[in-house]
Amino acid sequence: MSKLRLKIAMSLDGFVAGPEQSVENPLGIGGMRLHEWVLPLQAWRRTHGLEGGEVNESSAVVEESLANIGATVMGRNMFGGHPGPWDESKPWNGWWGATPPFHHPVFVLTHYERAPLELEGTTFFFITDGIESALKQARAAAKGMDVSLAGGAKAAQQYLAAGLVDEMDIHLAPTLLGSGERLFEHVGDDLHGLELVRVVAAPKVTHLKYARR
Amino acid sequence: MSKLRLKIAMSLDGFVAGPEQSVENPLGIGGMRLHEWVLPLQAWRRTHGLEGGEVNESSAVVEESLANIGATVMGRNMFGGHPGPWDESKPWNGWWGATPPFHHPVFVLTHYERAPLELEGTTFFFITDGIESALKQARAAAKGMDVSLAGGAKAAQQYLAAGLVDEMDIHLAPTLLGSGERLFEHVGDDLHGLELVRVVAAPKVTHLKYARR
Repeated sequence: MSKLRLKIAMSLDGFVAGPEQSVENPLGIGGMRLHEWVLPLQAWRRTHGLEGGEVNESSAVVEESLANIGATVMGRNMFGGHPGPWDESKPWNGWWGATPPFHHPVFVLTHYERAPLELEGTTFFFITDGIESALKQARAAAKGMDVSLAGGAKAAQQYLAAGLVDEMDIHLAPTLLGSGERLFEHVGDDLHGLELVRVVAAPKVTHLKYARR
Repeated sequence: MSKLRLKIAMSLDGFVAGPEQSVENPLGIGGMRLHEWVLPLQAWRRTHGLEGGEVNESSAVVEESLANIGATVMGRNMFGGHPGPWDESKPWNGWWGATPPFHHPVFVLTHYERAPLELEGTTFFFITDGIESALKQARAAAKGMDVSLAGGAKAAQQYLAAGLVDEMDIHLAPTLLGSGERLFEHVGDDLHGLELVRVVAAPKVTHLKYARR
């Protein structure tokens, strides 16, 4: 069966976003520090249509995390814009512009119905009947490939607590955010069989891979 | 100047002790899982007067953390026993029996005065005038060697927030505790110049060393 693979950047103090997230500052105060390691990488730049970039110990980890993904699940807050019902007068179409970097179907967890949003190469589907339904639909769309769980914190927490995550790539950034959204909150003390299977020490991040053996 | 070196085991979700700490269960529920990696090690067993044991990637880290330490600072809760004034009718003399494994002076942060406690090889001094005084006295006692900051959470937090920690060895255990005492709480978002300088992937733990470059 296709795996559900969580990949997420986390600070040493456990936060995956800083405080005061907003449309202007989607990662919250200081949240950009979680991602400083990835932005210079060739492997990341390529997925965003950019040339050049660095190759280091993180490159193979990023390439692996992008490989064999046929669909993505994310929370409403990661899709972004604003909380509450969708504002049809000025529709929010995600952070990624006309050509999002996914190039496969993306399933957005939300409490509010919305017709699918078709952008170049990526269609967003808005799922209102829960995490299991979203995962089931994403698996069907992935056609045998794996499903990426892109975050944010609350979506990751729900799938972790339900024991539905098959692999977890935590990119541990050597920084403190002090407050914001923690990854491991409301998750309990059960890793549901996930074990630490690989550690990669890279220049500005430590990659911790958890999987079922 | 002699360094203040924090060494502490932390779960993936950021806890250094589980919930419901007590005299019967000093590490709290599940807290023993933070230390499973260290107990089989020859390097640890030797300090506790035991023979034999394993040698693996953690061994050099443990040996380094024990080397060149001339004094230890710890919080009252780590010294243990009970909160509040010392009970002179049944004195609490620590968790470690008649021969504690320190073999150097130990400075215990407390709000309650108590005469020094001299055990075999280790004298405990009870410091009531704050973290800076305890560090100053520990440095004097260390005679040029470094000072170990042994925890627990609240003592570590106070020294981290004050920017007084010169090195930090975090032994990241691949487990969740779900609740308990977090290391990074009330610490803010400032590492005070501490940078990740070394990562060691060991069988049951990831060692993260932070220092000033």
